[in-house]
Amino acid sequence: MADASVDAVSAAAGDAVREGVGDVGRQAAGPRARVVGTGLIGTSLGLALTRAGWRVTLADPSPTACALAADMGAGSVAAPGDPAPDVVVVGAPPDVAGAVVLDALATWPDAVVTDVASVKSAVADAVCAGGGDLTRYVGSHPMAGRERSGAVAARRDLFEGRAWVVVPTPSSSPDAVALVTRLARDAGGQVTTMPPGTHDAAVAAVSHVPQVMASLTAGALRRLDEASVALAGQGVRDVTRIAGSDPQLWTQILAGNAGAVADVLRDVAVGLADTIDALDALAADGAAPGARGVVARVVADGNSGRALLPGKHGSAPTRYAVLTVVVPDSPGALARLLADVGSLEVNLEDLHLEHALGHEVGLAEIAVLPAAAERLAAGLADLGWRVHP
Amino acid sequence: MADASVDAVSAAAGDAVREGVGDVGRQAAGPRARVVGTGLIGTSLGLALTRAGWRVTLADPSPTACALAADMGAGSVAAPGDPAPDVVVVGAPPDVAGAVVLDALATWPDAVVTDVASVKSAVADAVCAGGGDLTRYVGSHPMAGRERSGAVAARRDLFEGRAWVVVPTPSSSPDAVALVTRLARDAGGQVTTMPPGTHDAAVAAVSHVPQVMASLTAGALRRLDEASVALAGQGVRDVTRIAGSDPQLWTQILAGNAGAVADVLRDVAVGLADTIDALDALAADGAAPGARGVVARVVADGNSGRALLPGKHGSAPTRYAVLTVVVPDSPGALARLLADVGSLEVNLEDLHLEHALGHEVGLAEIAVLPAAAERLAAGLADLGWRVHP
Repeated sequence: MADASVDAVSAAAGDAVREGVGDVGRQAAGPRARVVGTGLIGTSLGLALTRAGWRVTLADPSPTACALAADMGAGSVAAPGDPAPDVVVVGAPPDVAGAVVLDALATWPDAVVTDVASVKSAVADAVCAGGGDLTRYVGSHPMAGRERSGAVAARRDLFEGRAWVVVPTPSSSPDAVALVTRLARDAGGQVTTMPPGTHDAAVAAVSHVPQVMASLTAGALRRLDEASVALAGQGVRDVTRIAGSDPQLWTQILAGNAGAVADVLRDVAVGLADTIDALDALAADGAAPGARGVVARVVADGNSGRALLPGKHGSAPTRYAVLTVVVPDSPGALARLLADVGSLEVNLEDLHLEHALGHEVGLAEIAVLPAAAERLAAGLADLGWRVHP
Repeated sequence: MADASVDAVSAAAGDAVREGVGDVGRQAAGPRARVVGTGLIGTSLGLALTRAGWRVTLADPSPTACALAADMGAGSVAAPGDPAPDVVVVGAPPDVAGAVVLDALATWPDAVVTDVASVKSAVADAVCAGGGDLTRYVGSHPMAGRERSGAVAARRDLFEGRAWVVVPTPSSSPDAVALVTRLARDAGGQVTTMPPGTHDAAVAAVSHVPQVMASLTAGALRRLDEASVALAGQGVRDVTRIAGSDPQLWTQILAGNAGAVADVLRDVAVGLADTIDALDALAADGAAPGARGVVARVVADGNSGRALLPGKHGSAPTRYAVLTVVVPDSPGALARLLADVGSLEVNLEDLHLEHALGHEVGLAEIAVLPAAAERLAAGLADLGWRVHP
């Protein structure tokens, strides 16, 4: 199975090499990029930039990893005597990215330097504290998938249509910002530009705080006995899905964005304390004046926040229509349903399968564009499915 | 579409009537139940008990709702002169259940009375405060689906294999507990018995607290601008899925279990405060002694709590093996994948479809029993799918 994946990646890489060579033939004067760190992100970026006509050299502490990336078509292994790069891309872990950026700024005094770490203030602060030339440093955060790591998982389309946050410091020169923006677009990214603090506050709220809240919710289950925890349904499973995450990795991530995460959690703690006070009042007196309003406000504010989340295409927030379809719990039943959805030429935007606990049927929640919902519901009902709008 | 559902329910109800009549013919001496409140739960219970040979009468403030339930085969509309019931089942909302139980205890001085509200201490307290005969009162909480409400959504198999919590008070007589337990089993439920306080603490932790945490997490998104919230991925979508819930309904639920919910939230608030302190320390000094340990402990405790959650069949906690499969974002692709899963004779335990933001592929996370995982992965790879273990 691992071999099959490698073959698929290698085949794609082979295509990239052939097309890349063609592109270079047409655009021999493309910019020069040096990718430092040939993991998933660095290698995918090498593949994408090579295809877009950039001349890419590759460096990594591991010569094996670097050679693999080069074999896949991500660029050539860096060698003494290479021409100076126009851009250095640092693909190092967050806790060492600052030091590697400083080294690159010193080694290549005319190059723009960017990094791809998922937190940005800490890297910029490290560059500043180390006396680096901030005019030539511009941060990046490509929001790319991480389902596997390493060069072997790289795809030249990893950034295609995904958000790529370009994060200038106040000192970054306009030319440096323009070059990093060009690099991000040439890699396929959809560029959003924001300052380091705004970026870090955003990922705190949309990624880091949800992790803490899921972990705390799951942690509260530990004091239940087996009979009690057996009452769990789908809601708590969804809320706590990411609570299975790796503690070491997440400690590193949360520590790297500690200030921004703490700021959001402080707001959350105020809402939590208000909720506890209101519930205490209701426990003492079911008619406690104002207490129900506090609880209702917390749930209503959650409605508002939830409604802001964008649809899968990253466009403005989209509300999908959700149909619930009853599915027998047997091999092939869900496949038949989805074949029927496909035969009606409707594209799924999201799918969630809810199994009734111990029940012989499940419920498939199918999210589709609102314009398609009525036609899909009627079509599925015609085909014999029990559909709940 | 609504008609199709009604037809399906009516057809099922017709079966129930025919089979029920047969059962009654065989078991003419079955117990007598009076169902007060013919919503989803009451009507489904009438269908299930009728099929099991019980003689069921139906009452509801709405004569139309009651007649519909009777037409569906849930029992006969209660009339003056009916024989006294052995059990009265109160299917009223939580905030009036206590009063309806008191009325039933007074009206039928030899009957056992139960209710199906989702919180139990408040109902028992109301019965006690109202001077009701607690020896004849035993609470119930059937953990049944609520995807739609009303008699029209009723299914005679609604309780089949689902947890049904029987909740005696300290005063409940053994005979009363035995009769309510028989009723729950005859309806298809898997009976768990626990005291009111244990029940309410359990649903607080597995249902009510997750709702509050999801709402607070979603609420924290409101202060982001559109560019920032566009960085949201699948994690925050999962954590906040139930944050779309109805504020009025949830205020009623949370107020009904206020004390137990506040107790769990107080523990959560301690963990949250510790996390904030540790992150503040890390923001001030990246090497703050002990701070990383606090953060890692919160995530690790979440791992432990998450691991307690049972699998879909409600058995002891099961760890499923999860395979990630790359699925093109086109009509029919997911159906082909699931048809292939079915052709390999593997049953899905859970399915989650993650769409890479704006990307042409999605990732299907397929949970299966561990024993089937290797065979499935190999089979899918043979069929040309990219599978990540």
